[in-house]
Amino acid sequence: MTYQIAILGASGYTGAELIRLIATHPYMQIAALSADRKAGMAMAEVFPFLRHLDLPRLAKIEDIDFSTIDLCFCALPHGTSQEVIDKLPRSLKIVDLSAGFRLRDAAVYEKWYGAPHVHPELQAEAVYGLTEFYRDEIAKARLVAGTGCNAATGQFALRPLIAAGVIDLDDIVIDLKAGVSGAGRSLKENLLHAELSGGTHTYSAGGKHRHLGEFDQEFSKVAGRPVLVQFTPHLLPMNRGILATVYVKGNPGQVHETLREAYRTEPFLRVLPFGQLPSTRDIAGSNYCHIGVTGDRVPGRAVVVAVLDNLNKGSSGQALQNANLMLGIEETTGLMMAPIFP
Amino acid sequence: MTYQIAILGASGYTGAELIRLIATHPYMQIAALSADRKAGMAMAEVFPFLRHLDLPRLAKIEDIDFSTIDLCFCALPHGTSQEVIDKLPRSLKIVDLSAGFRLRDAAVYEKWYGAPHVHPELQAEAVYGLTEFYRDEIAKARLVAGTGCNAATGQFALRPLIAAGVIDLDDIVIDLKAGVSGAGRSLKENLLHAELSGGTHTYSAGGKHRHLGEFDQEFSKVAGRPVLVQFTPHLLPMNRGILATVYVKGNPGQVHETLREAYRTEPFLRVLPFGQLPSTRDIAGSNYCHIGVTGDRVPGRAVVVAVLDNLNKGSSGQALQNANLMLGIEETTGLMMAPIFP
Amino acid sequence: MTYQIAILGASGYTGAELIRLIATHPYMQIAALSADRKAGMAMAEVFPFLRHLDLPRLAKIEDIDFSTIDLCFCALPHGTSQEVIDKLPRSLKIVDLSAGFRLRDAAVYEKWYGAPHVHPELQAEAVYGLTEFYRDEIAKARLVAGTGCNAATGQFALRPLIAAGVIDLDDIVIDLKAGVSGAGRSLKENLLHAELSGGTHTYSAGGKHRHLGEFDQEFSKVAGRPVLVQFTPHLLPMNRGILATVYVKGNPGQVHETLREAYRTEPFLRVLPFGQLPSTRDIAGSNYCHIGVTGDRVPGRAVVVAVLDNLNKGSSGQALQNANLMLGIEETTGLMMAPIFP
Amino acid sequence: MTYQIAILGASGYTGAELIRLIATHPYMQIAALSADRKAGMAMAEVFPFLRHLDLPRLAKIEDIDFSTIDLCFCALPHGTSQEVIDKLPRSLKIVDLSAGFRLRDAAVYEKWYGAPHVHPELQAEAVYGLTEFYRDEIAKARLVAGTGCNAATGQFALRPLIAAGVIDLDDIVIDLKAGVSGAGRSLKENLLHAELSGGTHTYSAGGKHRHLGEFDQEFSKVAGRPVLVQFTPHLLPMNRGILATVYVKGNPGQVHETLREAYRTEPFLRVLPFGQLPSTRDIAGSNYCHIGVTGDRVPGRAVVVAVLDNLNKGSSGQALQNANLMLGIEETTGLMMAPIFP
Repeated sequence: MTYQIAILGASGYTGAELIRLIATHPYMQIAALSADRKAGMAMAEVFPFLRHLDLPRLAKIEDIDFSTIDLCFCALPHGTSQEVIDKLPRSLKIVDLSAGFRLRDAAVYEKWYGAPHVHPELQAEAVYGLTEFYRDEIAKARLVAGTGCNAATGQFALRPLIAAGVIDLDDIVIDLKAGVSGAGRSLKENLLHAELSGGTHTYSAGGKHRHLGEFDQEFSKVAGRPVLVQFTPHLLPMNRGILATVYVKGNPGQVHETLREAYRTEPFLRVLPFGQLPSTRDIAGSNYCHIGVTGDRVPGRAVVVAVLDNLNKGSSGQALQNANLMLGIEETTGLMMAPIFP
Repeated sequence: MTYQIAILGASGYTGAELIRLIATHPYMQIAALSADRKAGMAMAEVFPFLRHLDLPRLAKIEDIDFSTIDLCFCALPHGTSQEVIDKLPRSLKIVDLSAGFRLRDAAVYEKWYGAPHVHPELQAEAVYGLTEFYRDEIAKARLVAGTGCNAATGQFALRPLIAAGVIDLDDIVIDLKAGVSGAGRSLKENLLHAELSGGTHTYSAGGKHRHLGEFDQEFSKVAGRPVLVQFTPHLLPMNRGILATVYVKGNPGQVHETLREAYRTEPFLRVLPFGQLPSTRDIAGSNYCHIGVTGDRVPGRAVVVAVLDNLNKGSSGQALQNANLMLGIEETTGLMMAPIFP
Repeated sequence: MTYQIAILGASGYTGAELIRLIATHPYMQIAALSADRKAGMAMAEVFPFLRHLDLPRLAKIEDIDFSTIDLCFCALPHGTSQEVIDKLPRSLKIVDLSAGFRLRDAAVYEKWYGAPHVHPELQAEAVYGLTEFYRDEIAKARLVAGTGCNAATGQFALRPLIAAGVIDLDDIVIDLKAGVSGAGRSLKENLLHAELSGGTHTYSAGGKHRHLGEFDQEFSKVAGRPVLVQFTPHLLPMNRGILATVYVKGNPGQVHETLREAYRTEPFLRVLPFGQLPSTRDIAGSNYCHIGVTGDRVPGRAVVVAVLDNLNKGSSGQALQNANLMLGIEETTGLMMAPIFP
Repeated sequence: MTYQIAILGASGYTGAELIRLIATHPYMQIAALSADRKAGMAMAEVFPFLRHLDLPRLAKIEDIDFSTIDLCFCALPHGTSQEVIDKLPRSLKIVDLSAGFRLRDAAVYEKWYGAPHVHPELQAEAVYGLTEFYRDEIAKARLVAGTGCNAATGQFALRPLIAAGVIDLDDIVIDLKAGVSGAGRSLKENLLHAELSGGTHTYSAGGKHRHLGEFDQEFSKVAGRPVLVQFTPHLLPMNRGILATVYVKGNPGQVHETLREAYRTEPFLRVLPFGQLPSTRDIAGSNYCHIGVTGDRVPGRAVVVAVLDNLNKGSSGQALQNANLMLGIEETTGLMMAPIFP
């Protein structure tokens, strides 16, 4: 059985990463690609690294015949995504990679994204796409909302700890280091090689980053009470990868054991032996997430470090994992390739 | 049918790249891994990016039972390689990735490598592993000698042109830019991040680089007369990739057409439309080689640019392609994954 | 004596580099800075690395009082530069860093820059700013045209050789590797960190790069006959630095001796011992240019490698060196700081 | 007046940075350089970027005539440093850059460095070299112990806050991001470009980093009670720069005001306007330290971010600043050069 796949917004990094992954997927075929401003172009012109693939030309969304499509990935900006998805056939399975449907509460959405949600009924319908924690709902969903890449990393480090009640919920610090591809292919001065290479800086510090909306929603749901973490992202001179250093108060051994137990059967989440901490290099290009825990000389403090590839496990890999579930394909299909190093 | 594979010298970059590629190969299973100084260690300790794989522990070569092995990759230093391969069972198929068996002439070997060849009879037996030009011999060979990564890049740009007689054989300049993984995991001051990042320099310039031995042997053989190219390698602050800028005298259109025709049916060699030149980013992590040709305002001059991934198509990918041929597996098996970008 | 300095176009990299250099110059004071679109802003907002300096706010050019200015650096785009300089007081000394006045012939200018020169009389007046070869004219000039950074590098490698007649004038190849700051602070996709880091590619290959206009003009003038070099620039994942690998036909020893003799008393041009080749890391952040020569196993061929910092010796350092001459200050003033490494 | 300077251990990065800085210092002359294993070599061989300077050859320490030396910088490993300094003439002023004399308590030294101090009487004599807080003692000292580069960064962010009692002393987290030159020119696998570029990882996490000894000593002294911070360093793919993200509990406005007031007259410490956070790019190559403060949506939490160049302000710049004080030279002499960007 081969499923026909459409990717809307194929001219950005997450769209290209989806194509890279699906290129060797045994049960999926790319039937349509959209990119409004680049409609008519070949993918080889937009992303020459995909030159060897036989792909459909980029089209405008309105020119795509969705009647033959089984599943549609939507890698558009979150505002556009809301408009576009509303117009797609209701029979179509959709995995959205934008921030358009991640938050359940319309008021919270408006607070973090600065404008009211255009289609609150779709917002209500969408299932939050953190695969390992929403597997059953995702398998049955029509519309799945991919998580933020930073939000995924922080949740992999923290959800089992919050659920198990082994850490102080009022004192959680997530210090996050992010590669630049997470910012997309947008033309901004601070993303230029000359500006970014060789240095680092914070961004959206002081409780301002939008992924806090996801942290608040999910952590509070898990805890059954409000949980407000501190979250400081830093931009690093690297293309792929997120490393979240999470400071928690609790017994380090218990913290480690809780995570190890929670992810014992997960194919993509690996908890390292106690005291070992992971590197972003060890997951680049893959759908794996490595997690380590260590203690401190100050008793009752633990440091959890989680790493993943923002474009893969943090975005397009997660999306494909969810799509597999939605189509009834084995969840790991097309996602088992090893990271690339060096 | 699953073939049992051994990799000798698994603690270097080419060994690790072989494991990465074979990890998703449908007909190969890694049965033994060697690394003398790291014998007893798990691969996850040596290369944590392979942590997710279920691999045999590193062993000493003498502790490996080769009776169950179908094919052995040898990723050892060229001197060691000669000693080790001589002692392996004659029934074993071997793909050597070192410089140990690339040169057919014992005197030439000694000239470039500074010591006599230890096993000239093996040197004579070995087939030169430039797949696209030695396919039939490789399919029948017991021992295949992987090419130098720089040597492969230059030959992809030049062999058809020399064979077709469309360029001046006495005036060929190969200006090559190489990523640092080609130098291996060796501890040298000039390979440190603090020394290498942010700058570039030549190495082995002035006709001193050992891959000149391969160029001389192969180009002279193709031309039926001595051909001596100029070759200047540069080390670049990038991990993977080689870009060879080749200056030739000949009709640019004819140069382009000759290459296009020569590689028309090759699965991994792509000749771009005339005037387009490739980037190393578009082949990183893959077995593809992209080639472009342009002319100059000075008539009768052409520039050929070829790019490939030194660890993949230039080394471990080529080795796997050859192993497929030697085992009667479809040549492209396990090698069709897309490059990784960004 | 303190000279009052204006810098027009201070929001680009060459403008900022001028400020960095002049900050510790004992006889110059920055009295005015312009940046039309950023007028009103403080330099600390545009370039926070200059935060510690007490600098005038950015102004529109028309709001600057040039009556108190002794010398004006013009770091504007070449089209704008022509318009602006025409309107500046004739009493003002001007060092232009753009391509606006580098070419003497109006037809040649139009050919390379695609539009007629707006002020051919200024074009005729301007002195070509390659300090080491136009020292006397520069000292007397009102308007000096800074050279292209690539053009400077190639000329340092070749001018003495062409003048001395020690190389074949019809067979010169300049393979150049350039850092990304040479492309300026412009927002282009291929200059993004995610696109540029970790790889390399050619640009303006095949006889199309505009600096060929300078090479043609200068080399033909020196030779007394037309000289057309081949020139292929490559963009490298590094911020500062140019390395030009120049292939010439001639006696390598004579080539080396000619360069060594030519630059024996030059404060910023260093010729290395024969056989040693320079690295861009050794001149980054400085006004030095290092040059090396080696031979080849093919007799009668030499490779000359020249490195300099495109923003410093290739642009703003050269401009300051010229300004010193124009103001009667010792030429090396403010330019003797060591490169920065690592 | 020109002071004669010796630098012991001139073949490492901090030694080279000292030479870079002193090269343009108006009152210092480099009279002797040592590097035991490289004795006899010219600096241009060891660090070609210093090729333009007229420097003494590297010598063995025992071959240096200290009778004409006014001040000696000691950039040796901490064990060696203790032995060497004990043998130097007592009349010599010494700035040590190692960890040999930073800790006052012999037991604490042994705990962090794993061996007893060889010369506890020198340990007792040495003044801790954090210039801004020990200015008077340094001016009178014979032996000054340079601080750790990470230790300096954390102290600039925290000392005034601890002194003023505006933060909770039992809940301080320092999440630090460090460039690789801080690890020195040592040949370690994880410092190779192929291993380090493009990724990040923690090191010495979990309360194990030796600079904790300095934090404990200094913060406890300032507070008048034990203060134990949490400290997690990360290695980043950049050559120069440290960014410390410090999480404190206290009123953000008060935190900002305390730092601003404390550093109001400091020439090298700049506190940014509230809410602005600094980048390492803005201090690279300079002796400046930029500090920013922001609040959080969780009341009573503040984030302090401090950046400095580990080789300059964190090491050799600090050493020169201290040497100026010890010699009675204006403290900022030779240190006012602007950072280098891009």
